[in-house]
Order: sequence, then C-alpha cells, then structure tokens
Amino acid sequence: MKNVKAILLIADGLGDRPIKELGGKTPLEAAKKPNLDRLATEGECGLMDPIAPGVRAGSDTSHLAILGYDPYKYYTGRGPFEAAGIGMHVRKGDIAFRCNFSTVDENMVIIDRRAGRITSGTDQLAAAVRGMKIDGIEVLFKESVAHRGALILRAADLGAGITDTDPHHEGAKILKSEAIDPNDPASARTAAAVNEFVRRSYELLKHHPVNRERIAQGLNPANIILPRGGGIGPNIESFESEHGLKAACVAETGLINGVARYVGMDITEVPGATGGLDSNLINMAKAIIEQLSDHDFVLCNVKGADLGGHDNNPQAKIDMVGKLDEMVGYLLANIDEHTYLALTADHSTPCAIMDHSGDPVPIVFYGEGVRTDRCNRFDERSVTAGGLGRIQGVDVVKILTQLMNVQQKFGA
Amino acid sequence: MKNVKAILLIADGLGDRPIKELGGKTPLEAAKKPNLDRLATEGECGLMDPIAPGVRAGSDTSHLAILGYDPYKYYTGRGPFEAAGIGMHVRKGDIAFRCNFSTVDENMVIIDRRAGRITSGTDQLAAAVRGMKIDGIEVLFKESVAHRGALILRAADLGAGITDTDPHHEGAKILKSEAIDPNDPASARTAAAVNEFVRRSYELLKHHPVNRERIAQGLNPANIILPRGGGIGPNIESFESEHGLKAACVAETGLINGVARYVGMDITEVPGATGGLDSNLINMAKAIIEQLSDHDFVLCNVKGADLGGHDNNPQAKIDMVGKLDEMVGYLLANIDEHTYLALTADHSTPCAIMDHSGDPVPIVFYGEGVRTDRCNRFDERSVTAGGLGRIQGVDVVKILTQLMNVQQKFGA
Repeated sequence: MKNVKAILLIADGLGDRPIKELGGKTPLEAAKKPNLDRLATEGECGLMDPIAPGVRAGSDTSHLAILGYDPYKYYTGRGPFEAAGIGMHVRKGDIAFRCNFSTVDENMVIIDRRAGRITSGTDQLAAAVRGMKIDGIEVLFKESVAHRGALILRAADLGAGITDTDPHHEGAKILKSEAIDPNDPASARTAAAVNEFVRRSYELLKHHPVNRERIAQGLNPANIILPRGGGIGPNIESFESEHGLKAACVAETGLINGVARYVGMDITEVPGATGGLDSNLINMAKAIIEQLSDHDFVLCNVKGADLGGHDNNPQAKIDMVGKLDEMVGYLLANIDEHTYLALTADHSTPCAIMDHSGDPVPIVFYGEGVRTDRCNRFDERSVTAGGLGRIQGVDVVKILTQLMNVQQKFGA
Repeated sequence: MKNVKAILLIADGLGDRPIKELGGKTPLEAAKKPNLDRLATEGECGLMDPIAPGVRAGSDTSHLAILGYDPYKYYTGRGPFEAAGIGMHVRKGDIAFRCNFSTVDENMVIIDRRAGRITSGTDQLAAAVRGMKIDGIEVLFKESVAHRGALILRAADLGAGITDTDPHHEGAKILKSEAIDPNDPASARTAAAVNEFVRRSYELLKHHPVNRERIAQGLNPANIILPRGGGIGPNIESFESEHGLKAACVAETGLINGVARYVGMDITEVPGATGGLDSNLINMAKAIIEQLSDHDFVLCNVKGADLGGHDNNPQAKIDMVGKLDEMVGYLLANIDEHTYLALTADHSTPCAIMDHSGDPVPIVFYGEGVRTDRCNRFDERSVTAGGLGRIQGVDVVKILTQLMNVQQKFGA
C-alpha cells in the first residue's frame, strides 16, 4: 500500500480586507508568492469559513473545527488548551485556567496585572503554591513564559460556570469569583476554591525570597496569582481515533500546541520558531518533513501574519507571506507524490480591525488526483473561482482523508 | 392546477477525478454527451455533497440523504435495506441482515463464502429454514439472487449491536456473534439468536436434496447461511408524507430498491435493466415515463458508471455516459413542460480509487422557472461555475418541491 501522508499548514490570521494604501488589495493579494500561486494553479481552491459564515473565530476554536471537532460541542474556554499547551495533563472534568502573576497592594488592589512582566523566578513561585488541597480539590499549577501560568482544579463534579477574579485593569480591586448560575453548586464549589487559591497565593508569595529580591531591585513583586478563562476539560476523541492518522504538530504558540496535545498529537520544538515576524520558517518546514517520516499527518501553525493584522501593519503581513512562500517552496521540494498539502488560515485578522474578523479565508488542497481548477492565485478573492466553492473548517480533514483514501466509507 | 411532476435521475458513482490517460479529464469531461450538456445549458448547475463535504458515502446512505432523510439518524446498517429490496416487509425494530449461502466443512471452516455462486435451488433451501422460532424470536428468511439472501429477526426489544459470524474469508472458522457492548442484553439476545440460526441452518441444509445433488455434480454445497451487516429497522416517515409526492422507483439493484421500498415508493421491474454495463437504459427511461402517469415523482438509479469506477475502467464510464445521454434524450423528448428533471450522482467512484470517494458530484435542475446559469457543460468542474454553488444531498428534494411549488411554507 502507498504510504499516503498529509500536511495541513495554517497561516494564522492570514486573511484580510482590501487596504486603500495597497491600491485596494489585501496584503496576500499584494505579496509576491510564486509557490503559493503554484499551489493554487496545480491544486483545488476555495473559501473556508473556519466555524461558519460570518463567525469570528478564535485560534483555539478555529483549530478545533479545522481538526474536525465541533467547537460548539468541545470548546469550554481557553484554560484547558493553555494548560495542555505548557505540558500539563488536563483530564476530562478538570477545571483549567490561564493565570497571570500580578502585583497587588495590601488592599488587594491591582498595581500591575503582569507583575512587571517578570522573566525569571516564576518556577520558584510556582513551587511555593504547588501541592495544596482546597476543600478536597487537588490544585495543580505550572508557570509558563513571562508572567503567565496555568491552574488546574481537579475533583469529581466541579463546574466551570464562574466569574473571573481578574478585574482586567489596574487600579481595581480583585474580584470575588462566583457561580454564574446561583443554582449551580458544582460551579459554586469551583468559585470558592478559586477565591481560596487566590487568597493563599498572596499569603505564600508576598514574602517569598524571589519577591523580596524584586522589591529590593525596585521591581513589582509577583505576589498574587489571578486565574481566568476557566473551562472544563472536554471529553475529546483523539485525532488518531477520529481520523485514523498518527499526527504531529509543529507550532510556535502554547495555545495551538495545547489544542494539538489535547487531541493526542505529538508536539515538536523547533529552533528559531519564535512565533514572531523573525521566526525561522525554513526550520519549521524541516521539522514538518522530519515529522512526516513517522507520522501520517502534520499540522503546522505559523503565527506571524496574525501579528501584522493585530498591529495594523500591512507590510509585516506582506513580508510574512514572502516567508511563507519560501517555506512552501521548501515543502514542495521535499515531499513525494503521495503527500497532500493543504494551506489555509485559521481566521482573518484584517489590519483595519486589528483583531480577528469573521471573513472567510482562502484554502487550497494540493496532491495527486485533486480536481485542478481555473484558479491560479492564492488569495482571498482569486480562490472564489476555485472548484471547492465555500467549505467549512470541520470539512477540511474529511476532504484530506478522502483524497488520501484512508477514510472509512459511511454505508455500502 | 397544473400536474407538476419530477424525475430524479441518479447516475451511480458517476463522479471521478482527473485521469492522466484522458489528458487530465474525468470520464464525464471526456465523454460526448449533448443531452446532458443541454440540461446544463438550459438548467441550473452546481456541486453536490451527498452527505457532507469530504464524506465517503455508500449508495444506501447517499440515497437516504438525497431523498431527504438524515442518514446519521436513519441508517443503522445495510441489512434492513437489502431485506426490503428483495420484497421483505421490514418493520420498525426488526433486526435485518444480508446473508450468504456458504460452504463449510464439518469443523465449521469456510470452504467457499459464496457456495460456488449457486444459481438455482436457493428457494428450496430457503423454504427449509423458514418458519423457525428461536427463543421466542420470529425468524424470516428469503433468498435473493445467486448466493444471496436476507434474514429478519422479529421480537420486541432486540438490539443490533452485534459482531458478524462471517469471517469474510475462506479457510477461517465461522465466528460466534456477540454483543459489542457486554452491558447490552437486547443485542446479546440477538447475537444468541444469530448463532442458533447459523447452527440450525447447517443442520437443515447439509443433507438437503439440493445439496446432495450439488455434491454429486462436484459443486460446493450451500450448507450454511451466514448473516452480516445487521441493522435495526429504522422508523422512517414515508417519502409521500415527508414531501407530499406519490413516488415510484426505477432501479436495478436490490439495495436501491430496498431504500425506495423502505420509504414507501412503488418499485418497478424493467425488462433488460441488468445493473450492468449492458443495461437497457431506454427501457428504464420508458418505465420512468410510464410511472409518471400515476406518480408525482420518479427516482431512477442507473448503476453502470459505478462499475466502471470500481473496475478502474475509464472507457466503461465514458460508454455509460453515452448511454445515459441517450436516456436523457429520450426523457427530454417525452416529458411535458410541467415536469422537472434533476440529474446527479450518489457519489464519486474514481477509477484511481476503485471505490467510493468523498469528492462532490455535479448536479443539474432542469425545468420551468429555474435560474439558468452560465454553465453549459455537465461535468465535475464545469458545474462549479453554475448558479447552485455547493449543496448537500438532503437539499435536493427540497429544491425540487419548491421549484414544483408543492412545498409547505415554513412560517407566514
């Protein structure tokens, strides 16, 4: 049997809207990108709504959808995927949160939500709060990069329907977490545990040597931990059992790695993959080819274009398209005829919006047997002449597995 | 009131992928088909996903969807439709199986799964096993063509979650059917009845005169019956109550007739309709016109193109398109202006895959008032320029009934 493989390459936030300064073109339309256009010429193109037409997708919900999981069913909040992304083992039913180390005064008023963007010592601070139990609930905490971390509360029958303690701006007092629905005792128990965790984190951290040292240096102490974005660990089938493909992920951000890890993909570390505009995409391409040797499917997310959108920097997006084009060139030169390549984005991040929009994104499927169409440019508007029409995120892996001829037939 | 009618013509497995030997065309693109192209020119075209984008559909699940029934809700296995297709009256809650007459040795090892493709005497063998009761369960059995047959187990509270007894290859011992879920007593009862039916079939058939005669002639005896593909009879509204149309079916295969009969359509027998490449499609066209005289809707399935795909025989598919084209010519010459004609496929069967794929299929709606578009060729890629865009199987009859103006309005 042929050893059929697939690469799904997601250019984060790639889609955009026409920009006056670019002569009414989008950054993707304005960029020089011979390899992406080769994909369009030899592949099958169309528009893709990550979740559904007009829906503004997050990167997490979009990646879930694109991997074949209905985000309305499986997405419960960012917490579980952030926690998984930094290597915590989130179980079904866990309540997981992303957290900030913050600075408060003795009245619990926020001085600095990010504790001076602390860069070292959070491992020691994390050790200080680790291992506590609250009301029979197991408490797990792990630091992430800079002022970030993740919290897991583990017990039977906890609920995630709670309000945040983080007031989301400085000068405000930290809030008391409460169950959103007063008739939801499972969430009320979670809220009480969160309040207690926040209180204890302050007691444990305020005089911690790391913070004494920071104060001595005139830095804001990381004297409290504020959880937010709590969600319950969803019960998700692994990508391999869902689609029959052994999968790896090559990504730069914890959130995408978290989604990938949550569905059982192997995670890779790529030197020079920074998640920024300076990221080494050729190294990422090399990692993809490497992972293909012992996986059937590699998901890759390249973050840069999204940053250009968030920063209203069309030129940064154009430059990222150039780097993506080189990356695709490397991939095309290093895959065999039994490897499929799909290229798309997880959402649009228009420069004019400086955030995710609900505009659909271009998609192309390249490989043996695809119904090549008359589209020969890979951009938001050219692909509307393609053969795919308008598909949705949840269709993407189904289309790949049927092209690969590895999908179970439904019926006789 | 105008006497509005509709024909839904399904070319089984018609869709394909570009084929190098055809200069990168699909068989449908390579074929000469003036009447199909006339439909495209005068009608409204698009792509259709029988079930959903990328989903590899069976003929049974696809026909259910195209007739307006969600196959994820109503499809429980092939058995109920096979049984209905040979004229058995499958009731809601029945557990129905397709069966093979097979040859086993005294150790229950399969010598021949198809009992020498036995062509006569199975009616007498069927009579020998008919009428038994097992553990209070009514057992119905009917022979079909060649070595095939169908079994129904009828009792309150039977389950269909069981494993097969047929090991699916020669040289293996027949298997013991078991409930897939050990905590499913309804299916455990079915499994026990299946095992007992198989055992008794051997006792009743091994010395049957038909088999004595076969052994004397050096043929493999049909000395056991092996059920497989069990499913529970679904509770489906009839096509007439669902869509308000009195319907007939003109088809060549038991499976399609079974689906049609299951939703209450009248079945027809057409002389020369063989289900093969030699089938007399003009006779089928005549049968359609005949059925239109006392039905509002005729479903027709023409099998041939699917065979060409399964056999990796592009020329056979091209030839079938030629025959389909003549058939459509006959239909166009014999319908009045109040009759709509929709032409599509139930799935693609690409020659390169030699099985069903998840590639979408072309569809055209022809008749008074359709929004004629710029598409003038009926094939997989030309229709992407059509007015319909990309629709799904469950949309098809809705589109027909609204064109016919016989659909109830939803709302005010």
